[in-house]
Amino acid sequence: MASMASSLFIKSRNPSLSSHKTQKKPHFAAPIKTSLSLHSNPTRGRIRISCGLIEPDGGKLVDLVVKDTERSEKRRQAQSLPGIGLTRVDLEWVHVLSEGWASPLRGFMRESEFLQTLHFNALRLGDGSVVNMSVPIVLAVDDAEKSRIGGSTAVALVDSGGDPVAILNNIEIYKHNKEERIARTWGTTASGLPYVEKAITNAGNWLIGGDLEVIEPIKYHDGLDRFRLSPAELRDEFTKRNADAVFAFQLRNPVHNGHALLMTDTRRRLLEMGYKNPVLLLHPLGGYTKADDVPLSWRMKQHEKVLEDGVLDPETTVVSIFPSPMHYAGPTEVQWHAKARINAGANFYIVGRDPAGMSHPVEKRDLYDADHGKKVLSMAPGLERLNILPFKVAAYDKTQSKMAFFDPSRPQDFLFISGTKMRTLAKNGENPPDGFMCPGGWKVLVDYYDSLAPSENGKVPEPVPA
Amino acid sequence: MASMASSLFIKSRNPSLSSHKTQKKPHFAAPIKTSLSLHSNPTRGRIRISCGLIEPDGGKLVDLVVKDTERSEKRRQAQSLPGIGLTRVDLEWVHVLSEGWASPLRGFMRESEFLQTLHFNALRLGDGSVVNMSVPIVLAVDDAEKSRIGGSTAVALVDSGGDPVAILNNIEIYKHNKEERIARTWGTTASGLPYVEKAITNAGNWLIGGDLEVIEPIKYHDGLDRFRLSPAELRDEFTKRNADAVFAFQLRNPVHNGHALLMTDTRRRLLEMGYKNPVLLLHPLGGYTKADDVPLSWRMKQHEKVLEDGVLDPETTVVSIFPSPMHYAGPTEVQWHAKARINAGANFYIVGRDPAGMSHPVEKRDLYDADHGKKVLSMAPGLERLNILPFKVAAYDKTQSKMAFFDPSRPQDFLFISGTKMRTLAKNGENPPDGFMCPGGWKVLVDYYDSLAPSENGKVPEPVPA
Repeated sequence: MASMASSLFIKSRNPSLSSHKTQKKPHFAAPIKTSLSLHSNPTRGRIRISCGLIEPDGGKLVDLVVKDTERSEKRRQAQSLPGIGLTRVDLEWVHVLSEGWASPLRGFMRESEFLQTLHFNALRLGDGSVVNMSVPIVLAVDDAEKSRIGGSTAVALVDSGGDPVAILNNIEIYKHNKEERIARTWGTTASGLPYVEKAITNAGNWLIGGDLEVIEPIKYHDGLDRFRLSPAELRDEFTKRNADAVFAFQLRNPVHNGHALLMTDTRRRLLEMGYKNPVLLLHPLGGYTKADDVPLSWRMKQHEKVLEDGVLDPETTVVSIFPSPMHYAGPTEVQWHAKARINAGANFYIVGRDPAGMSHPVEKRDLYDADHGKKVLSMAPGLERLNILPFKVAAYDKTQSKMAFFDPSRPQDFLFISGTKMRTLAKNGENPPDGFMCPGGWKVLVDYYDSLAPSENGKVPEPVPA
Repeated sequence: MASMASSLFIKSRNPSLSSHKTQKKPHFAAPIKTSLSLHSNPTRGRIRISCGLIEPDGGKLVDLVVKDTERSEKRRQAQSLPGIGLTRVDLEWVHVLSEGWASPLRGFMRESEFLQTLHFNALRLGDGSVVNMSVPIVLAVDDAEKSRIGGSTAVALVDSGGDPVAILNNIEIYKHNKEERIARTWGTTASGLPYVEKAITNAGNWLIGGDLEVIEPIKYHDGLDRFRLSPAELRDEFTKRNADAVFAFQLRNPVHNGHALLMTDTRRRLLEMGYKNPVLLLHPLGGYTKADDVPLSWRMKQHEKVLEDGVLDPETTVVSIFPSPMHYAGPTEVQWHAKARINAGANFYIVGRDPAGMSHPVEKRDLYDADHGKKVLSMAPGLERLNILPFKVAAYDKTQSKMAFFDPSRPQDFLFISGTKMRTLAKNGENPPDGFMCPGGWKVLVDYYDSLAPSENGKVPEPVPA
């Protein structure tokens, strides 16, 4: 391992994904050397490199971006088709689909895929095998769009600037029963579900499925595109790093030392299990998040500090952005979060308390039982190949002044610092207890809340999501 | 076939299930002769008899009724345990479980089964195989009952008369999140869902799962118990009849000639496929139904007339009562209806338009898309072994004065008579078009509505469900 180059935020090996000029952070190390020859058993090393990563769902990673040479032809073709406008969330799903996070899905769901997702959280493939698929990846159209499509068998998907992003072929249009979609995905139809209000309530009454051809890789030009590694690029990276286990950590919040302890401890456990080089995929979600979550750009700054401060080992950590939007659908969504990481090469998945959960939008309680996420994940069809690593509870140990695994024999020594508590402290510019988060990371949070101009009545406004 | 004894409503071969004295209907024929020796190929016949029926889910039919010799001991044991009162619907589920309709389930669901049902409509067994299970079969307890149970590992389930019905062993108590249960089962949380109002809204906030020991076979003493054949008894019956295919028809409505045409046509198709003796399981649902459905006792009378009038062939038809309560949960529930019939030996299942559907309780539309039931059924995990036979649309052909398969080339010749229309005609004592239903069957319906005393303002009151 000492032979491996240090790399925190890894740099894409794909020139089209890089933007070296604008980014000169110290943590962008030189390309990582592969270290095959340094292993005592080169054959084993080689096997690991060529066959070590978990197979993507369906056996082959889907890539829906057309070849360079076909781009202008596809763009021309798109101009001749009925155009469907994409929202930002739609575009994020095109991104997700285009890179094969949802492999073997090759486009927005047709009705048979939609129904299987709603009822079974899984898709049966032609060979009888089953892959997990728990959240509907669908595109809504309204009556006017539907009538404009008429008898066309393909449509162009167009971004907010009017430029064609993709072609959807062999389309199928079917009813968008929003109530049923929401009830079966969230287990509630209470008003105030963030994704529902953002992407469903005002969406059209029809869904359009089909096979996607994406004209060029999706970019957001927000300075973070170079962190948006595709599943194929992540697989390349893990292979180059000679990983024999990849453990994924999904997050949409700042990393505190409890998280870090957990990730470090996971690596230790994997080494104990006999793996020689477990690599952590620290994988913040980069698509739509609700207004009171910390925006992606600030989270990425915070994660950077955590790595700079040495809380996580840069040699064995890959930080990358997961392009999916967030549903906040608890046990249903955590399956999607896990399944997508299989496609990126992860064979271990860390799951915590109440993953993808939130407060009930109407009642005074959590929307989901805190244990259901890990229980459902461990039983989910199509995820049998994935090793689920349930979170141990970490809390602030006052006797050690650091985050530690909770010891039920001395509960009085532990302090639980909730996300709300953390946010309140950061908003007020106060410090958390020593050892809760590295100082550099904490400063990013305080800076973020400082950046929000207080409104006249002194209340901190809700930030706009990234 | 001509060698087989005629039997419409078959008589139970289990003496404890019979009540010969009170029932002397002409359609109760002598016990059916097995006709093995009459087959040209006795070996084939023997194979068919011993191995011809589809395997129950999990490989073995569950039977939770304790042996005769253990009854008094179990009754004594029950007296010493904390008692949980059963509602009528709870008792129907005990019945369902006791006879193995839900095989391999051995009692009310524990949380892991409940979660798998809600999220995946399927249960994964110890050997990795999957069986379908789409509706939660759960027992609710309230705070007082929970505290009365205390640390006991078993409880007695007690009927409305205070008599112990069953013991639930190795219990697990977990939260009853009603909103989530309803949303994921029905795809809506709109108020007015019949089963929800009947059995969930006022139920306790906890669910109790465990392994059932049922003290004696569940009986209702309503004159219909002898039609309530268990899956084991039905399998015996199909074997005795030398069936090489069993096709099940679930219904909760009177049988009209469109249904009959469909069943007759299904048999014809199965014969064409090469089956020698396909037997129809005409299987009215006998548990809880909503107030405006025709009660079970009247439906049974109506079915009897249909068979007497020769609309269906008694030699190849078994009429029995399916003891499950009705959820009206459309595509979710139709899976349960099909799965339970596998356990009873059916390898073909007829599915119609909008199975287990109803009107949306609040909005002016059907709750489910009319095609979703058959689509979901055909894709459902654990039902791969079952042959799904989608309903052809039958309607009244005015040119032939009979029910016929709808011919889209001459739509003007067909009359669609909805359930509502049928009920309105019967309520008003009017006749449907000739050939819609056999006169004897129609008279039963008219008699049923006559039996409901009109209220003072002349409106027909909603009948009480059976």
